[in-house]
Amino acid sequence: MTFHTHSLDNGLQIIGETNPSARSVALGFFVRTGARDETAEVSGVTHFLEHMVFKGTPHRSALDVNRDFDRIGANYNAFTSEENTVFYAAVLPEYVPQAVDILADILRPSLRVEDFDMEKNVIIEEIGMYDDQPMWSAYDHAKRIYFGEHPLGNSILGTADSIRALKRDQMHAYFERRYVAQNIQVTFAGNFDWERFVALIEKRCGDWSSGAVGRQAVRETPGSGSFRVLTRAKVSQEHVLLISSAPPADSPMRYAADTLALVLGDDSGSRLYWALVDPGLADSADTSFHEYEGTGSVLTSFSCEPGQAEENLAIVHQLLHDVQEKGITQEELQQAKSKIGSRVVRAGERPMGRMQAIGMSWTYLHDYRSVDDELKAFDAVTLPDIRALLDRYPVDQLTTVALGPLETLAPPGQNGKR
Amino acid sequence: MTFHTHSLDNGLQIIGETNPSARSVALGFFVRTGARDETAEVSGVTHFLEHMVFKGTPHRSALDVNRDFDRIGANYNAFTSEENTVFYAAVLPEYVPQAVDILADILRPSLRVEDFDMEKNVIIEEIGMYDDQPMWSAYDHAKRIYFGEHPLGNSILGTADSIRALKRDQMHAYFERRYVAQNIQVTFAGNFDWERFVALIEKRCGDWSSGAVGRQAVRETPGSGSFRVLTRAKVSQEHVLLISSAPPADSPMRYAADTLALVLGDDSGSRLYWALVDPGLADSADTSFHEYEGTGSVLTSFSCEPGQAEENLAIVHQLLHDVQEKGITQEELQQAKSKIGSRVVRAGERPMGRMQAIGMSWTYLHDYRSVDDELKAFDAVTLPDIRALLDRYPVDQLTTVALGPLETLAPPGQNGKR
Repeated sequence: MTFHTHSLDNGLQIIGETNPSARSVALGFFVRTGARDETAEVSGVTHFLEHMVFKGTPHRSALDVNRDFDRIGANYNAFTSEENTVFYAAVLPEYVPQAVDILADILRPSLRVEDFDMEKNVIIEEIGMYDDQPMWSAYDHAKRIYFGEHPLGNSILGTADSIRALKRDQMHAYFERRYVAQNIQVTFAGNFDWERFVALIEKRCGDWSSGAVGRQAVRETPGSGSFRVLTRAKVSQEHVLLISSAPPADSPMRYAADTLALVLGDDSGSRLYWALVDPGLADSADTSFHEYEGTGSVLTSFSCEPGQAEENLAIVHQLLHDVQEKGITQEELQQAKSKIGSRVVRAGERPMGRMQAIGMSWTYLHDYRSVDDELKAFDAVTLPDIRALLDRYPVDQLTTVALGPLETLAPPGQNGKR
Repeated sequence: MTFHTHSLDNGLQIIGETNPSARSVALGFFVRTGARDETAEVSGVTHFLEHMVFKGTPHRSALDVNRDFDRIGANYNAFTSEENTVFYAAVLPEYVPQAVDILADILRPSLRVEDFDMEKNVIIEEIGMYDDQPMWSAYDHAKRIYFGEHPLGNSILGTADSIRALKRDQMHAYFERRYVAQNIQVTFAGNFDWERFVALIEKRCGDWSSGAVGRQAVRETPGSGSFRVLTRAKVSQEHVLLISSAPPADSPMRYAADTLALVLGDDSGSRLYWALVDPGLADSADTSFHEYEGTGSVLTSFSCEPGQAEENLAIVHQLLHDVQEKGITQEELQQAKSKIGSRVVRAGERPMGRMQAIGMSWTYLHDYRSVDDELKAFDAVTLPDIRALLDRYPVDQLTTVALGPLETLAPPGQNGKR
């Protein structure tokens, strides 16, 4: 595998990992913009715009976009996060020129008013759908409560009100500001010629406008430390989320943070699994590390019968407190490394996995990481690294949010007060 | 890539596709037994037994099974279908000996009465969970109604009653009869040495007992042709399934059948998509080809607002009738080939995908198919092949099952009678 990188005159960046033994190609347009880059007035515009990108251009109707992708057998999609909007496709090598043609075309969408008005309803339905998923809803609230006024607390979907109030011209202004060439990176991985790829992108994207782009509030945050109970009578299970601080995406400590999260709350064989899931005290329980530009978080969540929530919360507190005090064992570290190694290798076996990995690595580090670089970095994590991580980012300094039928929930060690 | 095959003296078969450029190994134990091999008295025993396999052996508790898999970072699971029970894991090459050790051990489970009684509740809960998924429930009923007395109509999960009545000794007798060496095939794909793999399996499985195994009623069936409405007041959407006959898994016509199903009802850009999903007449609509030993089926399903079901059913009937009369277009065939090619190639990029593909191909054909063999077979499908398929297996001779709030639903062209 060989890695390449190139910048067009307008600032658009191109990166690629060529792999002659692969049989397909995955390519993605990474736009460095997300919910954190929105003001309150346009909350949800990034995600709504992601939808509008598939609604057509001066050269293609929405139908054409669908048909043209289908014609080349493309597996295509897009996603919006707090910091990125990514449009991607996987195709056979012979269809890369068409895939570039479609993706580059739709990334300059018409944003027609009729389509905008129609799609509004789709977005509002999607918001309603997520409202019906209590864990998602709890996560959205928990982020807001943890981050407080920090823009990483912004909702990705926005609210039905913010979407209803949004005007096509506001979206257009946002597009003009954020979808400039300097803010976009095109990534591919798989079996395709690098020079040819650059020529295809240059031809289609070379005239895209430039412009300065920034990002507000790139700073660490320890979280609000709040304890909140959000009562939802119609929800049957109680959903509890606990968030502590963690290193940002460009920190060398990210490998230790990922490893620690796995030991704490992987979906099998973790401390949380043995404490809550295996004995049947919770339906699900999970810990994950989330990394952003400037900051990060460790999120532990579980859902259970409402009557079990208080005991479970005490168990989780004790578990996190133990790890904070005593760290983890050499055996746990070793098991986590086996799991991570296996996952890194398997994710890297497909061009789609490599495209997403190198695209994200370039976005956050401006650095290329091969599968072996990643394996080495995880393999180098030691117990003292875990200790240093815990000292800097304590896992027992928590912001807690519960969503479900309960009206009150006593924080552990507070004798029933809240 | 190189393909190998070997039989042990007790009849157990081993196959493998070695790929020195892969970075992981996927391995699976394919037991040729499923719901179709059950009598009514033990309905659901195959799936229940799949669960019990993870509950321990004379050498390992259920906890040990979980811990030992975790220690080597294995991605492991199992599934039960009408005809197969498959246990599999993906690991890094250095952990293949441990993975074989665990899988071979658990395939000779203790079936302890205490575990059996505990797991019964888990299975009954799982049955309840699926009952809450109307499309799954409709599918289970539709299979029974389509296949009539043919054992392919057997429910995979069984019923709460059949599971409650099941005794540990009945499961043990089923295990003794169906999990014999002749009925098991071990498959691997990825970066591992063939001779070494055979030695590992020989050592762990060479003493497994032999025994004659057969399968009842391996014959084609055109389906019952029934039209049934199953009223479920609590379900909000109407779920409609239409089944027609199709070639069996070992038929050369399977490639044409897969292609036709894609043209009819792929989740994007198919006839069904443009007729029902794109205009918003149905929430979902889909056609798929199901192949078995001796027979096959084409299943079309959609879900929609109850008031829309009759019109949608008429649209689907017209659509299937048109295809039956006029076939499909060259452009549709070409687009389907692009999609299938892309999917076959991408599924084949991971050892897990290859392991499942070659394992199934060996189970049904006793033949090895490389990715290129598969691509060539699909590429060779012509419009006359589609015509021949339609003549032999008409897509408009249907068994129809609707499940949802409706009390009646008029079959198209019957002026309101049912």
